Amino acid sequence: VKENEPQKLPVSSARLESLGDGIFAVAMTILILDIHLPTNLHIHTLRDFKQNFSPLLPNLLCYIISFIVLGIMWFGHRMMFEYISRMNRYFIFLGVLFYAVICFVPFTTKLLASDTEGWYNILLYGLNLSICNISLFAQWAYGISNRNLMHRELPDEVRRQANLLFLLSPVVYSIAIIVALWFPVISLWIFVVTPVLYLLPNKLDKYLP
Amino acid sequence: VKENEPQKLPVSSARLESLGDGIFAVAMTILILDIHLPTNLHIHTLRDFKQNFSPLLPNLLCYIISFIVLGIMWFGHRMMFEYISRMNRYFIFLGVLFYAVICFVPFTTKLLASDTEGWYNILLYGLNLSICNISLFAQWAYGISNRNLMHRELPDEVRRQANLLFLLSPVVYSIAIIVALWFPVISLWIFVVTPVLYLLPNKLDKYLP
Amino acid sequence: VKENEPQKLPVSSARLESLGDGIFAVAMTILILDIHLPTNLHIHTLRDFKQNFSPLLPNLLCYIISFIVLGIMWFGHRMMFEYISRMNRYFIFLGVLFYAVICFVPFTTKLLASDTEGWYNILLYGLNLSICNISLFAQWAYGISNRNLMHRELPDEVRRQANLLFLLSPVVYSIAIIVALWFPVISLWIFVVTPVLYLLPNKLDKYLP
Amino acid sequence: VKENEPQKLPVSSARLESLGDGIFAVAMTILILDIHLPTNLHIHTLRDFKQNFSPLLPNLLCYIISFIVLGIMWFGHRMMFEYISRMNRYFIFLGVLFYAVICFVPFTTKLLASDTEGWYNILLYGLNLSICNISLFAQWAYGISNRNLMHRELPDEVRRQANLLFLLSPVVYSIAIIVALWFPVISLWIFVVTPVLYLLPNKLDKYLP
Repeated sequence: VKENEPQKLPVSSARLESLGDGIFAVAMTILILDIHLPTNLHIHTLRDFKQNFSPLLPNLLCYIISFIVLGIMWFGHRMMFEYISRMNRYFIFLGVLFYAVICFVPFTTKLLASDTEGWYNILLYGLNLSICNISLFAQWAYGISNRNLMHRELPDEVRRQANLLFLLSPVVYSIAIIVALWFPVISLWIFVVTPVLYLLPNKLDKYLP
Repeated sequence: VKENEPQKLPVSSARLESLGDGIFAVAMTILILDIHLPTNLHIHTLRDFKQNFSPLLPNLLCYIISFIVLGIMWFGHRMMFEYISRMNRYFIFLGVLFYAVICFVPFTTKLLASDTEGWYNILLYGLNLSICNISLFAQWAYGISNRNLMHRELPDEVRRQANLLFLLSPVVYSIAIIVALWFPVISLWIFVVTPVLYLLPNKLDKYLP
Repeated sequence: VKENEPQKLPVSSARLESLGDGIFAVAMTILILDIHLPTNLHIHTLRDFKQNFSPLLPNLLCYIISFIVLGIMWFGHRMMFEYISRMNRYFIFLGVLFYAVICFVPFTTKLLASDTEGWYNILLYGLNLSICNISLFAQWAYGISNRNLMHRELPDEVRRQANLLFLLSPVVYSIAIIVALWFPVISLWIFVVTPVLYLLPNKLDKYLP
Repeated sequence: VKENEPQKLPVSSARLESLGDGIFAVAMTILILDIHLPTNLHIHTLRDFKQNFSPLLPNLLCYIISFIVLGIMWFGHRMMFEYISRMNRYFIFLGVLFYAVICFVPFTTKLLASDTEGWYNILLYGLNLSICNISLFAQWAYGISNRNLMHRELPDEVRRQANLLFLLSPVVYSIAIIVALWFPVISLWIFVVTPVLYLLPNKLDKYLP
């Protein structure tokens, strides 16, 4: 009988998205905030300039990689909500978990920047980025398996391609971590190249305006 | 006579929620920002790794607890506005008070992390989290007692369960504070376990999509 | 002739408000972030506790005052947009100016907290808060003088009361600055009491839900 | 045939704008956060005051310039979305790139403030601001060249004036960088004056309410 059935609340995804935008915004800004200026800055010649800024270069590279990776994850997170528009408690907790891992990115980036060839640094950085993607995928998998949360039909092609995109980076980063045992420089290059793979045109572009 | 009656403004809750999302986002990101890296990082062996990261473990634990607690409070705060959608000055000031106490969480977390067995540290941390919940409850109690602010009917079951959820943690944290006089480790475990209670399925889940 | 008339854009206030919510959220969180923990924290007795936290008390007081003042300004800013809903370039620049002065509040608060009885500290703090209110008033005065920007009729009573509320604090803070030349403690009390005046019931409450 | 055509998603610009508001809010607040108070603050006489605050003046000037420049860029960014309202992947990546460069502004501002007459400092600051404007222009140029993303007709006058406004500052800043080789003080004045040019009334004002 209908009377006993509770009236469902229309819990929209708007505020989870808004919390996420705030967290991404702070994490992204904080990333670059962590590049500390040399304490004694009197740059008069090109040599001074090189001397002061060369040690910042690996930092700069790490920060740029992380910024782009965060940008890509923000994009995936943003697109997810084109299909999923209503929330329940489990989805929201998966969402908060995702944000928790995102908040660690400035920390592991600083760690990697402090020694770009250290295996443990590469391990923690790769692990952090992988867990970001996996927890984003968990939200997606949970959301699309729950009819009540969905907003529009999910084409099969989108499902397949999304799975590919979600799982690509954890796989690649795992390889980077293993490779780093012998050739840490190659791992760094993998971190540089992987985001580029996500920037290339893909089969999902045709669903966008 | 109607002419003398002022035309009420439709003061929606949207901006208070948006301010809150910003404050939660900054507080959550700042939490993890406070985990400082060891200054001299040259991690080559597993021993180096352990030596460098072991002292970070209690910090890490405190930060994770606080992040989850903040996530749960954000969720409660978010759900409240499914029922309450219009604001008056008193509600907004209760809201700002809640945000003020939330902003203290990174501070008391750092305090707890600096000495997880100190009674005063446990006192201040437990007190902070309790006051967060109590001030959130104050908003709720004020809001649902004021017909003009409400947006939809509040089922009796929701009222009862919400009261339980709002008051559970202040009670548990008070116990933790008292227990800490003799067994601070148990208090720490109470801080770990309490958020889990909020993650378990509860009677309110059936109102969500 | 109509053809030459440009089609006006419906420039809504939504994004200016959203930028403001972000700025207030960061400024408020940063305030409390500035309360630094004593470096050597081993609190075992009540005496340790007092010794460690007493020097934090003036800081804490300043931060709480500033948080409440920011809360009140946020409220004024928020209510303004109940009447003003469309933007032009001048309004937006006044808005950004207001945010610039708000961003200085954590700075002048830290300054005041460093020496609560220094005249220059009181001068700069009082000046900062006054300019916040004056620049908020400038937005309001400009907005309500421009029919195109308004969203609903402004009752005369609201106009009069709003002027009073906008100009009250600059006047009171000016007095505080002058008084501080002889009795800085009284000025501090003025800073404590002034926000309370804004929390009392007033004639505008009847326009709220 | 229609069946093979994918159903386009209505990817709105709302979340990109919201991420941007967060990033601008943090960057703007962080700017002023970087003005460090002199460590030993006992200001009793006007001489103390001058001694303590004079070294802050160049900093203060740089921060005010950057705040105003960020305000103007935020305004340009905000107005862009009056015409462009739907997103594809390329637009969003251009947007994230723009945010990345914005996040560097607090860094290059601190650099300039550390030595306002150093050529490399002026070079990096001017370059940063120029790239901000150029990457904003890239978004605009890409967006208006793509019918699907647009929301309303773009008058020819707006197109011409917008191009002028987008490209004005990179040109002026390039001049500032070259001039700085001989007269760094003049470059600083160029940085002061350029934002003022954007605050003057212009031909686009008539499209605003």
